[in-house]
Amino acid sequence: MTSPQSPGTAVAAQLSGQQSVMPAAMLHGLPHGPADQATVRRSNLALVLQTVQQVGQWSRAKVAMETGLNKATVSSLVTELMERRLIREGEIARGGLGRPGQIIELDDEIALFVGLELQVDYVAAMVTDLTGRPLGRQRISVDVRKLGAPRTLARAAALVIELLRGAGTDRSRAVSVNVAIPGMIDGSHGILTYAPNLDWRDVDIIHTMRGLLNLPDLRVTVDNDANMAAIAEFATGVAAGMRDMVVLTGEVGIGGGVIANGELLRGAHGYFGEVGHMAIATENVLCGCGRRRCWEAQVGLAAILRAIADPDDMLHDPSLDLVSRLREIERRADAGDVRTLEGLTAVARGLGQGASVLANVLNPGAIVFGGYFAALSRFLSEPLEQEMYERIIAPDGGGCRVVYSTLGFEAAALGGAHFGIQNVMADPSLVDASLGA
Amino acid sequence: MTSPQSPGTAVAAQLSGQQSVMPAAMLHGLPHGPADQATVRRSNLALVLQTVQQVGQWSRAKVAMETGLNKATVSSLVTELMERRLIREGEIARGGLGRPGQIIELDDEIALFVGLELQVDYVAAMVTDLTGRPLGRQRISVDVRKLGAPRTLARAAALVIELLRGAGTDRSRAVSVNVAIPGMIDGSHGILTYAPNLDWRDVDIIHTMRGLLNLPDLRVTVDNDANMAAIAEFATGVAAGMRDMVVLTGEVGIGGGVIANGELLRGAHGYFGEVGHMAIATENVLCGCGRRRCWEAQVGLAAILRAIADPDDMLHDPSLDLVSRLREIERRADAGDVRTLEGLTAVARGLGQGASVLANVLNPGAIVFGGYFAALSRFLSEPLEQEMYERIIAPDGGGCRVVYSTLGFEAAALGGAHFGIQNVMADPSLVDASLGA
Repeated sequence: MTSPQSPGTAVAAQLSGQQSVMPAAMLHGLPHGPADQATVRRSNLALVLQTVQQVGQWSRAKVAMETGLNKATVSSLVTELMERRLIREGEIARGGLGRPGQIIELDDEIALFVGLELQVDYVAAMVTDLTGRPLGRQRISVDVRKLGAPRTLARAAALVIELLRGAGTDRSRAVSVNVAIPGMIDGSHGILTYAPNLDWRDVDIIHTMRGLLNLPDLRVTVDNDANMAAIAEFATGVAAGMRDMVVLTGEVGIGGGVIANGELLRGAHGYFGEVGHMAIATENVLCGCGRRRCWEAQVGLAAILRAIADPDDMLHDPSLDLVSRLREIERRADAGDVRTLEGLTAVARGLGQGASVLANVLNPGAIVFGGYFAALSRFLSEPLEQEMYERIIAPDGGGCRVVYSTLGFEAAALGGAHFGIQNVMADPSLVDASLGA
Repeated sequence: MTSPQSPGTAVAAQLSGQQSVMPAAMLHGLPHGPADQATVRRSNLALVLQTVQQVGQWSRAKVAMETGLNKATVSSLVTELMERRLIREGEIARGGLGRPGQIIELDDEIALFVGLELQVDYVAAMVTDLTGRPLGRQRISVDVRKLGAPRTLARAAALVIELLRGAGTDRSRAVSVNVAIPGMIDGSHGILTYAPNLDWRDVDIIHTMRGLLNLPDLRVTVDNDANMAAIAEFATGVAAGMRDMVVLTGEVGIGGGVIANGELLRGAHGYFGEVGHMAIATENVLCGCGRRRCWEAQVGLAAILRAIADPDDMLHDPSLDLVSRLREIERRADAGDVRTLEGLTAVARGLGQGASVLANVLNPGAIVFGGYFAALSRFLSEPLEQEMYERIIAPDGGGCRVVYSTLGFEAAALGGAHFGIQNVMADPSLVDASLGA
């Protein structure tokens, strides 16, 4: 691209991005204000940590070979990473040529990463170690709209503390808490601007949560739930590693997280993937945002409940657990209830139509349906896929597969924990040597 | 991102991509099969050429400083780039500290780059030098559907040769011809799979064009017209350099080219941006692709002509130049013709609706309306923008600006020429030392 940007911008962008590995030597190319020693050191720390993350157990010598850094530098960096409790020494490696060396690996015993997810009718939390392994999870039914922002956040904070206690761990080992919300975040200030389905406006999630958790070294971030679900799917889901994918959250709202070329797309101002409000519905139905013809008004959880159940039906009760309500829907569908089956089919067609819009625009290698779409996929998949593939203009559906998430309703919470890990991988100095001490 | 890819993949991807500058030192990070000497040399050639492209006139010493390569290497690379006629020596640089040095700059006297654009009712061609400066352009009215693929391609080839002759140049100076087509390209074979509005299927554009032009060293590529329009807009348009933008081509079909984070998005299989076939139209109108409710069936050129003119109206005559037909529409609108004004307003609303879908999904910093949308923007802009901004869920339209292209109907042709330049910037060895000899 004949870009007006100055040389080196591409490099700087990559350093701040989510790319897995960036050779430290890249810094030589920066033209304006050459990288200082501290920057180089931090970048090399990241390089070593990411290399260990990706290859698993290796010797320092092999890490040196892999990264192009010299052995003395690698040794010093490994020592620092061990002090920060991100790397530890493992078994002595034998076999292969040369003398055996002490191998190093990710330290999964200290640092903890928490993902928290707030939805219309539940709050979910997940805690993982540095390798991304879940150590505990919790989900509670909450009528968030009724409870309001301050009380919901207080309950969510209590859930986090309970979860950390349940994992038998010291709270001070928590490195970060990411709060995933079905709403729009002002990226520059970290304020939740608007979450139509929660009916929240202008909430300072970050500082409220920091105040509630009261752990001075804890890093709190806030992000869109669909973006976090996409990170979880890319890291550990059924289509993990697919470099172009769309992840759809099926809740009351529908969010879209998009991975293109292996990176999460965020758009010019952080509002990428507001797919729920695409004006594509055939019916003139009113959306929670006040507009008409929004996709989620046609196919979100509220739409399906409205289609298949009268207002006094237990299915509408937000205090009942979502999973048990979905089981009830499955039960009725299996029993051949006509209203349930017809409602599911109609919603599935609307889903297929919207998915085809995304497939035509984004040409992903896969669309991952999460949330309730996955829970009810037995009844949705056939009409959904038929409608979708009929509407894709590219030959053979443009190579787009349809897959149903296996991560359940905690996908965004899991993604939030992974997001915290990624931030540490990009800048290990975020973790203090006093962690857990 | 916790990516399953091996370390170094990010680097390899960047090397093959469109990024402007890639420090040669990055190659040190490649793990599997270390880069051989030839690869390093080619990458360093690209680095030096891109640096000169971006900074303009500089001395070898400054290029060495900028790139982090040593002076002897830079001298040798510059010599090779001069042999390939991509760089030349310019005026002696004075001023500043140190002794004056011979400056180097892009050589705009030899290499030529051609962009060719085939649309339903015209063929356009553009030739530029290595700096992207247009040296000549041609556009002829052609009823492509009637003429068919072989005759259209023959006429297009004749146009290219005429254009090169008109620029007073030797044909052998042409480095590349990029053919932009409103259709889908099988990326792995370079075959046009399907162009619904041209009614072409499975056409081997590349080899036919190479056979017609019969210049053995000429590089022929084929690409989607909207992608090429996006490259032109990003390089030289009204929103040039904006790192997240959507470019919409307004022809019989509507194509979308999307730049995200400064890079053209192509999707998993090269079909990114088929926005014309989003199933979003409120009316059940039949599209050229055989489906109903496609966006372009509601707002493409054919739709607007159908709305404002009877079948025997001169506006429908594809043998008349498109620009003069659009002038006639403007004349009628200025004269207050009700049917014309109402037709334009209705189409503008449909355009705004579709644009809002793209803005909600992609959150671009700008949507650039090209082709006939730009030509008629005086009459379209108000209802279009009103409809669009009403339908964007993010606050303040997500920061998305609406702009109208100033590149005219040759945008994709210009983008094709720029694409050829980018390919040479990424790999200068594509240009032989015998160029133009």
